[in-house]
Amino acid sequence: MPQQIWFQQGLLSKEEVRISPDDRGYYFGDGIYEVFRVYHGRLFEADAHFDRLERTAAALRIPLPLPREAMTAKLRELIAANELQTGTVYMQITRGEAPRSHPFPADAAPVLFASASEYGRPLASMQQGISAVTAEDIRWLRCDLKTLNLLPNVLAKQEALDRGADEVILHRSGTVTECSASNVMIVRDGAVCTHPANHLILHGITRLVVLRLARELGIPVIEEPFTIDMLREADEAFITGTTVEVTPIVRIDDAPVAQGIPGPVTRRLQAAFELLIGL
Amino acid sequence: MPQQIWFQQGLLSKEEVRISPDDRGYYFGDGIYEVFRVYHGRLFEADAHFDRLERTAAALRIPLPLPREAMTAKLRELIAANELQTGTVYMQITRGEAPRSHPFPADAAPVLFASASEYGRPLASMQQGISAVTAEDIRWLRCDLKTLNLLPNVLAKQEALDRGADEVILHRSGTVTECSASNVMIVRDGAVCTHPANHLILHGITRLVVLRLARELGIPVIEEPFTIDMLREADEAFITGTTVEVTPIVRIDDAPVAQGIPGPVTRRLQAAFELLIGL
Repeated sequence: MPQQIWFQQGLLSKEEVRISPDDRGYYFGDGIYEVFRVYHGRLFEADAHFDRLERTAAALRIPLPLPREAMTAKLRELIAANELQTGTVYMQITRGEAPRSHPFPADAAPVLFASASEYGRPLASMQQGISAVTAEDIRWLRCDLKTLNLLPNVLAKQEALDRGADEVILHRSGTVTECSASNVMIVRDGAVCTHPANHLILHGITRLVVLRLARELGIPVIEEPFTIDMLREADEAFITGTTVEVTPIVRIDDAPVAQGIPGPVTRRLQAAFELLIGL
Repeated sequence: MPQQIWFQQGLLSKEEVRISPDDRGYYFGDGIYEVFRVYHGRLFEADAHFDRLERTAAALRIPLPLPREAMTAKLRELIAANELQTGTVYMQITRGEAPRSHPFPADAAPVLFASASEYGRPLASMQQGISAVTAEDIRWLRCDLKTLNLLPNVLAKQEALDRGADEVILHRSGTVTECSASNVMIVRDGAVCTHPANHLILHGITRLVVLRLARELGIPVIEEPFTIDMLREADEAFITGTTVEVTPIVRIDDAPVAQGIPGPVTRRLQAAFELLIGL
């Protein structure tokens, strides 16, 4: 069965989808997106994703083509059509087609595109942990907006790979922000510490879920900026994200994090997360 | 005659161009571009644009699909096919099609798209000047790279319009950088002052041309950062850009620039530019 895509009003095979070169998403990155997790064929934390999508759309004044309920129903249809059990749904909405000119066009209609893909849980890296390098965060000052302007994230991720690591931990003049497509947390004196959800980081859904789980487990949560030095001296470090869930970081810039193995708080959070998703 | 587009290997009518939703330009803004000026049916300063394109492509490791000579020849063919006399040529090159994943794909081929459009010289605003507002520059720290990640520029331009002005002058904590899609210069004690061509501004071709013309006219040129206060107290202010050429700024944040009319140094540079392009 060819992959089914949700494009504008209906489901199509991918080959039928035709994006116009006049789409502002194509020449300005003028659009927004969400990546939903699918477990057991169902959207995980769909409302949290739609909350963020609506917040980003409002900030950028991109009209959403459908109400949340209709979009959710269509995504379920997409998941069913692709017989997806464990995977992701990628959905993006651009401001629409118009001749290239910076101001918001008066009469463009948003262009919606969504695809569903198999994507297994990254069991090996969740078990063994990953390596990370640190790099300066040179992105704009509205990292809370989940837009299609992702070239800095692409370059940061590529830099990690070029330097022989799995991921990059970004910092602004020594203050840790997040990773290329995930949030980062450390454990310090038994507490989970992570950057506050302001304009300098993406407000991750998994970040939210994990902080809620930590509180439920009685683990103190500190949402305050921390430094690269604190990161290097942390008892544990891990990333959170829709596809990576809770993945330990065991090496940073070629030095082990503590003993260089996933730590006990990380393990407790992984177990709680696994229980939540029921897998 | 329907508009002819250069897409990949050949010229097509615009309706035949089909961009894939898997184009990294569409979901990451992972691409680069140039806007060339066309006067008398000829590309203006083509080599300077290709120099910048090649520099940006190298920095982002996007392979160019053709050597400069072949691209130039094809753009000439495009201009002829559209019978363009005075206008612009927009050309963009993305990293190509690949399943969505941040790292550079191993085997994607770049996707090239170029269009030619009528665009007259903005005579009224060049004559009377425009108004500008100031706003904080929140863009990333590689503004010298001419990429498709243009949402911050879009938002800045829209803010200018929302505030009743024509253009926005961006500053980082009080240091003036540039405008939403043009460079900004002031005249102070007879000298032309503009931000140096580093990572905080786009290295405009018209900026280069105008600074060269200023030197030829014996006007001192100072390429150093200047402040918002110096901007407000300037004797003259103007923007430079491929489509706007040399356009005076006569109001900033609702106060006139000096007497609120285009100044003599701006006029001399406009005249020299007009002579250069032979119109």
